[in-house]
Order: sequence, then C-alpha cells, then structure tokens
Amino acid sequence: MTNAQPLNTRIKQTIDTKTKPLGSLGKIETLAAQIARVQRTTAPVMSACTLTIFAADHGIAHAGVSAFPQAVTGQMVMNFLTGGAAANVFAAVNGVKLQVVDAGVAGEPISHPDLLGQRIAAGTQNFLTGPAMTTAQAQAALDSGAEIARMAPGEAQAFGEMGIANTATASALTHKLTGIPLAELVGRGTGLDDAGLATKLSILTQAVERTGDLTPEQAMAEYGGFEILMIAGAMIEAAQTGRVVIVDGFIATAAAVLAVTLAPSTRNAMVFAHQSHESGHRALLVYLDADPLLALDMRLGEGTGALLAWPLLRAAAAMMTDMASFEAAGVSNRD
Amino acid sequence: MTNAQPLNTRIKQTIDTKTKPLGSLGKIETLAAQIARVQRTTAPVMSACTLTIFAADHGIAHAGVSAFPQAVTGQMVMNFLTGGAAANVFAAVNGVKLQVVDAGVAGEPISHPDLLGQRIAAGTQNFLTGPAMTTAQAQAALDSGAEIARMAPGEAQAFGEMGIANTATASALTHKLTGIPLAELVGRGTGLDDAGLATKLSILTQAVERTGDLTPEQAMAEYGGFEILMIAGAMIEAAQTGRVVIVDGFIATAAAVLAVTLAPSTRNAMVFAHQSHESGHRALLVYLDADPLLALDMRLGEGTGALLAWPLLRAAAAMMTDMASFEAAGVSNRD
Repeated sequence: MTNAQPLNTRIKQTIDTKTKPLGSLGKIETLAAQIARVQRTTAPVMSACTLTIFAADHGIAHAGVSAFPQAVTGQMVMNFLTGGAAANVFAAVNGVKLQVVDAGVAGEPISHPDLLGQRIAAGTQNFLTGPAMTTAQAQAALDSGAEIARMAPGEAQAFGEMGIANTATASALTHKLTGIPLAELVGRGTGLDDAGLATKLSILTQAVERTGDLTPEQAMAEYGGFEILMIAGAMIEAAQTGRVVIVDGFIATAAAVLAVTLAPSTRNAMVFAHQSHESGHRALLVYLDADPLLALDMRLGEGTGALLAWPLLRAAAAMMTDMASFEAAGVSNRD
Repeated sequence: MTNAQPLNTRIKQTIDTKTKPLGSLGKIETLAAQIARVQRTTAPVMSACTLTIFAADHGIAHAGVSAFPQAVTGQMVMNFLTGGAAANVFAAVNGVKLQVVDAGVAGEPISHPDLLGQRIAAGTQNFLTGPAMTTAQAQAALDSGAEIARMAPGEAQAFGEMGIANTATASALTHKLTGIPLAELVGRGTGLDDAGLATKLSILTQAVERTGDLTPEQAMAEYGGFEILMIAGAMIEAAQTGRVVIVDGFIATAAAVLAVTLAPSTRNAMVFAHQSHESGHRALLVYLDADPLLALDMRLGEGTGALLAWPLLRAAAAMMTDMASFEAAGVSNRD
C-alpha cells in the first residue's frame, strides 16, 4: 500500500486488514471511513469535540404551538450555564466542551460571563402574520454561526439548540426548502396532545400558505429561527475548515437541510447522531440520505443525541490508528 | 418525596422532575431506572466497568463450521494481551478495564503475565459425535466464571468472548435450552457464504438430533463451550453481587439465556448492549424480552458492543444524580 493509491482505496485497505472479520464492525467502519475522508488521511484523530448550544425565541410561540411557556428558553439558558441540564451532564460524562450562545432569546439580555452573546433580536416575529426576520438579520445569523464554528476547538463540532416553539419553525422552514408536505414535518414537540398537535398543524398550514414559492434566502427570513440559521452557518463553516459535523435531532437536522441547500458539500462532513422520536425527523433524514448512529427514542434537543454519539466517533477513529493488522499481530486471516 | 415511598416510585419521581420534557430521554430514562433498581437507590453510580474476555476452543470447529482456522483463537488471545484488537481499542477509548481469560484454548497453554488461566481443557470435544465436556467440567466452568466476576472491579461488568466456531456452539446450546428452531439460531458467524451456512446448519442439525430432551445441566455438558459457560457463571455472580451486567452480542446473549435458565433473577441486572448482525441473536433477544441499546450492524464479538454501550450507562446514571430538577433550576414546567 503506497501513497500513490487513491485515498479511498487506502482507507478501505486500512480498515479491511485490521484483525477482525471483513466488515464486522458495521457502521463503525462506515463512520471511520467518513472521518478519514474528511481529514484526508488513513490515520484520523478524534481527540476533542465542542458542543455549541444556540438558544433563541420564536414569535410563533405566541400562536400556541408549544406545551411550554416561552420563558423556559431563557430559564434553560441559565440551566445550561449552571450545569444542570441533560446536555451538561452528557457533555461532562463524555468529555465534550459545551458552550452556550444567546442567538436571540426574548426579554432582556441574560448577563453571564460564560454566555456568548450573539443576539440578533429578542426573538423572531410571529411568522403567522409576517416575516420572522429581515434578510439582513438572516444573513447576520449565518455569519455569527460561522464565526463561532471558526473559533471552536476540536476535530468535531456538534450543535444543540434551545427555543420554545422551534419545532414549529423547523417544520415551516424545511417545508419551504424541501417541498415535503407539512403534515409529514409537524410533530408533538416537547409534548403536545392530539388536540395540540391538530392546532399546531392548522396554524402552520395557515403560516406557510401566507407565501408562495421562496428562494432559500427568502425562506430563511420568512420562516427562520435565529438558532437554526446560526447552526446552519456554523455547520457550513465547520465543514469548510475540515471538521466533522455531528448532527443532532429534528431542529439540528432542519439546520443541516438549510446548510446543505446553501452549500451542498457540507453534507460530506455530516455524521447523523440520533433518530429522534419527533415525527418529521425521519422525513428530513431520508431527504439527506442519512442513517443515524443511535435510536434511543429521545426528543429533547440540546445536542443530547450528538453528545451520546461522540464516543462512537472516537472509537471509529481509534480503530483506524490503534487496531493491529492481521500481519502485524500474526493472526491468520480466513484465506 | 420521602424514603417511605417505594423505591420504584422514588426512582420515577426523580427522573420525571428533571429539567426536560416528560419521557424525552427515552431509552436513557429506562436504563437509568434499571440501574437505580439494581443499586437500590435514586442516586446510582456508574464509575467503572470491567470487560472480561473469555477465550476457548470448540471441537465442532473440526467439522468445518467456521470461515477461520482454529489457530485464530490463540492468536487473538495474544492480540488482546498486546492491545491490538478492536476490544482493546474500544476499552481504551471508553475507560473500561479489560482482562482476558483462557477458558480452554486448544494447544499448549499460552504463557503471559496478564492472562488469567482458568483452562478447563484444551478445547471441547466435538459435539457432533459425543458430549462436548463432562458434567464436572461444565460445573467447573460455571464456578470459574463466578470467581472471576466476584473479583472484578466496577459497578458494571461486561463479558466478551473469542472462540473459533462458538456461534455453532451457541446455536446448538440455546436450541436445546429454549426449543427455538435451530434454523432460526444458525447464522454466518465470522463470514460463511451460502454454501458454508447450509453446511453449518446441516452439521448442527445432525448434532442436536444426537440427543433428545435435556435438562439445562445435560445441555451444558453436551453442547456447551467453556467460554459460554464461564460467562453464564460470571453473569449470575455479578448480578448476585449487585453489579449491572452488560450483555454483548450473540454468544454473550446465549450465555445470558443459560444464566437466566439457571438463575432467573439474573435477568433484572442485564442491560443489552447491541443487536448484532448474526441471525439468531434477534431470536434470543425476543426470548429474553430484551431491547438492545445499539444497532450498529456489528458481528465481531469480543465484547465490542458492550464497550460501545458503556458510555450510555454512565450517562444514564449521571442523569439521575447530576441533572437539576425544575424546582432547583427555577425552570417552569408545562403546568
């Protein structure tokens, strides 16, 4: 095996000569090959990961599409900053650096030394009656996300979100971007009952009928959320700077759809962490031809799925570099 | 919430008051509740895990039921001892202590300071023509496993295996223990083609028809493998000493079936790590009413699935102890 061979050939050969039956590590092998391609090496490194949680509020929350009050967004930001949320716990267990961004939480700005302030506005406007934001605000959100991704350490970056009513935003935005029927993209969010779900679908149907066909730029402004746009900007930048992008649940996957729409090569860097319980997630995963690593029936967001997937990325990279080959270990192969 | 309430109620209440929508951590919540029940506390600890890999050879290998030569068992034991196998790499990445037991590898005993020698014999006899071992050997294997589990550190114990042809042994043994049709329990092992699979099924059919209905004790001696019996003994002991038992792929699940047959309460301590690609595994999981955490298309054994699941156990326990409640964090609940 020489460097003259194409990278993909060398990656495959590295994996296939390890001391294990051919293909017997399944999705870990596929993952290892992808990480190796992103890093353009047969000896990839996965030593550190940053999870950035982007928090923002959504005007559509005032239309009654969530089981929780809007105040929870800011309260959960404080919970992240004081270490009490699920994302904090999973990040600590798996050695992931966690940072929190105020992308546009409603109310007065939260003051905390560890909070990254990038607020575009105190929440979006209600897209039931008009655009969620201006096109300048949408561009500013993409740019802020890119800046944050540029500065975050680690060979992998994961993105989480917090924003009451952001499943509603994700459904409307991805409907406009992909043409997938709205009914397939609307789910129970944090816990709507049947009546709540019917109301949410009815409100969102009204909201998307307010406009016709839209360019991606128009769709972002009309139906975007600040955190979703920032995540999309961050994903594009992380991919362009050679990082692996760990995509979490429904909201992060909606941001991934936007990122791939704006910059298709971003898809190559994306690892899909978790198939969430939120209906609509499956539809977006199919759209992106994605096969998530985990299926733990979670529907929390915050990047929790990505945090639980991170050890699998570390294992996959270490398999490439630390496992012995049949030859080196003196183990007989099947032939 | 007082200590006067039943443990199960207190566990549920602890989980349900954490700052997340009800049930939104899915299988992690189920796992956390199980770990808490095993440790009889609402504040479980998952700080350390030991993986013990039991290696042994199988007389049935001489009937031509594996894609690899029998010498690979001993070669892989050396690979474990020098750190080059997939299990070593995954154990290192996830902070799991790994130890290797010679339960009965063919040939001369392997001499290595880190190898735990518990060899019952230099491989089992070929169960196509007679019993794999004596009933005294079967009992000795169970006892050795129990002794090893008693001494292994950690709140969780995982068990891996290495043994050329041990899928054949696992199929025959569990067929006798459960009555599940042999055809449902026989698969490609490390990589048989269609012809090899047909031969394997034909040979195993002949082998199981050699005997009639058997007691579990008889089945162990007639169709057991030393590593499978040791794992069963280890699982029973680990459960009885309050440890969580992480069950890996097809072979380890076959040992779990035996453990539950001999000591049904062992089931309460079992966490199922991975749905392997080996056909037959699904049938045994259904038999045990088990819902594995991971499905990564792996079929390697060695405890690799258990090693990848360990971070999920740590996350689940930490969720119970380290996440804030709605009340403590000042976050509004949906009501």
